[in-house]
Amino acid sequence: MKLICWSRFVKNLLPCFLLLTLLLCLNNAALSSPAVKDLPSWREGHARQSIIDFVKAVTSAGPDFVKPEDRIAVFDNDGTLWCEAPIYPQLQFAIDRAKQLVVDKPSLAELPPVAAAVKGDLAAITALGPKGTLELLAVTHSGMTTEQFSQIADDWIRKAQHPRFKRPYTDCVYQPMLELLSYLRQHGFKTYIVSGGGVELMRSFSQRTYGIAPEQVIGSSCKLRFEMVDGKPQILRLPEVQFVDDREGKPVGIQEFIGRRPIAAFGNSDGDLAMLQFTCCNDRSRGRSLGLIVHHTDAEREYAYDRVSMVGRLDKALDEAKKLGWTVVDMKGDWNRVFAFDHDQ
Amino acid sequence: MKLICWSRFVKNLLPCFLLLTLLLCLNNAALSSPAVKDLPSWREGHARQSIIDFVKAVTSAGPDFVKPEDRIAVFDNDGTLWCEAPIYPQLQFAIDRAKQLVVDKPSLAELPPVAAAVKGDLAAITALGPKGTLELLAVTHSGMTTEQFSQIADDWIRKAQHPRFKRPYTDCVYQPMLELLSYLRQHGFKTYIVSGGGVELMRSFSQRTYGIAPEQVIGSSCKLRFEMVDGKPQILRLPEVQFVDDREGKPVGIQEFIGRRPIAAFGNSDGDLAMLQFTCCNDRSRGRSLGLIVHHTDAEREYAYDRVSMVGRLDKALDEAKKLGWTVVDMKGDWNRVFAFDHDQ
Repeated sequence: MKLICWSRFVKNLLPCFLLLTLLLCLNNAALSSPAVKDLPSWREGHARQSIIDFVKAVTSAGPDFVKPEDRIAVFDNDGTLWCEAPIYPQLQFAIDRAKQLVVDKPSLAELPPVAAAVKGDLAAITALGPKGTLELLAVTHSGMTTEQFSQIADDWIRKAQHPRFKRPYTDCVYQPMLELLSYLRQHGFKTYIVSGGGVELMRSFSQRTYGIAPEQVIGSSCKLRFEMVDGKPQILRLPEVQFVDDREGKPVGIQEFIGRRPIAAFGNSDGDLAMLQFTCCNDRSRGRSLGLIVHHTDAEREYAYDRVSMVGRLDKALDEAKKLGWTVVDMKGDWNRVFAFDHDQ
Repeated sequence: MKLICWSRFVKNLLPCFLLLTLLLCLNNAALSSPAVKDLPSWREGHARQSIIDFVKAVTSAGPDFVKPEDRIAVFDNDGTLWCEAPIYPQLQFAIDRAKQLVVDKPSLAELPPVAAAVKGDLAAITALGPKGTLELLAVTHSGMTTEQFSQIADDWIRKAQHPRFKRPYTDCVYQPMLELLSYLRQHGFKTYIVSGGGVELMRSFSQRTYGIAPEQVIGSSCKLRFEMVDGKPQILRLPEVQFVDDREGKPVGIQEFIGRRPIAAFGNSDGDLAMLQFTCCNDRSRGRSLGLIVHHTDAEREYAYDRVSMVGRLDKALDEAKKLGWTVVDMKGDWNRVFAFDHDQ
């Protein structure tokens, strides 16, 4: 009797198990489907392979495995995630702001960097040196609350257009790098921006453009002051530099904000050299790392510049990359698409 | 024939569906089991209820709903998450470091704050004012790389003991606040520490003690300098203050690091007033917020102090809390357990 019951029980459950097995197989097949290729805008080659090999090494059981909480990846913004030529978007923002401010307060045009900005005379701004640029930034980026400034930055980034591509700057982001950001996050990485750009301007679009939350954006900043005005709290932006997140400032910013050495760094200029040195460490006993430089070699689809450029100069970092085995991306050869609006090539 | 097949198919699958239904029911029952109570170390009352009501309001569909990415909660550390009496652990760390440094370099004892620290003379340190304290911190917290300092901080926090409770400082954390941190995270909040304590010391234990990653700790810091030494990167700690994350510094630190106004703030002293003002905003049209102050009223299980205390003075913030309807936790009445090592009461 017992035997018969068991036999019936097994017989009745059999179709159920077969069904479940079939569902599980279908599910696994979908997950490992070769139809969806990683990093589709990257052509087969050393650059793409070095990324895939690195991610595989640090996420698989083995000597190079890194715990998910230590998988920190840092990205420069200008020239690494979005187009920085022919003029840094942050500087274009300052110029546009200066033009607007002078309408309300013409006396501002007496300041040489503001006068140069209003004329759109980049050579004159450059000729005034760092002091002139800081003065221009102070006039255009301070004297309001952080909330007012966020609104100004947000309005600008939604309206301003890249002079050559005639599209919002946030469309002029590199499709292969967007895929790389996603790919790293899918493998448990926390992705950060570490850029010389003003932190508030970048935070106004980082989430919707890159999927990077404001608190994962490290940038240059001005001093701030908290005060209560008529019982309401506000934070004022002061005309003084707090932090320049460029060159040796980048590893310092990373230490201050993240408190840990990243394991992957992505840049495109000498301004990123210290961040790459800090991340890659030149010491394999400290674990595997990935250093990558985007080399602008594609005048047709974007721009071609390196050792003598005024914008995003890449000279010493290119030599170091070759010496230390960092990955150098040849934009023209390694990317089958630069912008999302390009056709596949 | 077809009918018979269907009938057999249904009959065979029936036990399978019954089994699945039973499993689903059991699973749901476990999830909604009333046996696991939220915030078990909080006694029923206004404080506990105000937390639960707030979390329910901002996480449920309705006028107060807040998207998960905007659910930022900030916690002071000293006196809010761990015991700060009779002496801030950070100051005890500086004193212990001074004693050790003088062994290797006796001439340091010629500096008045170091001499006072070596004697353990708190009154003398206090009498030297902020300048004396800063000098003590400069001597004990700088002059090494960030990696060396992390190791020093980690060694100290694992060995040092609270003078009254004779346990590691990391055991002297408030059990109800640990439950609150978990409870908020379970409801999609991102929890941050925003404290006057040195950022590197807090980061050495924040993950294992509070479940808060190093990059979610904002604290006071010294200036840093990146340099390459024999081809290896290092960051040096300089004897200069970079940022004091106390009082009006707290909202500034939040803006710099997080870039957004939090919706919940937890503190215990006048040092947290600006952070509470910034968070709660005194303006319901800007969305619902929670401000909470831990009032130290329990000399038996912990300490009792407020308006005239040298450590964690709570005076103006207590008045503001009453005026603005922030939650004030009566440690003695609202918590059935202060430390994990207490017995339930």
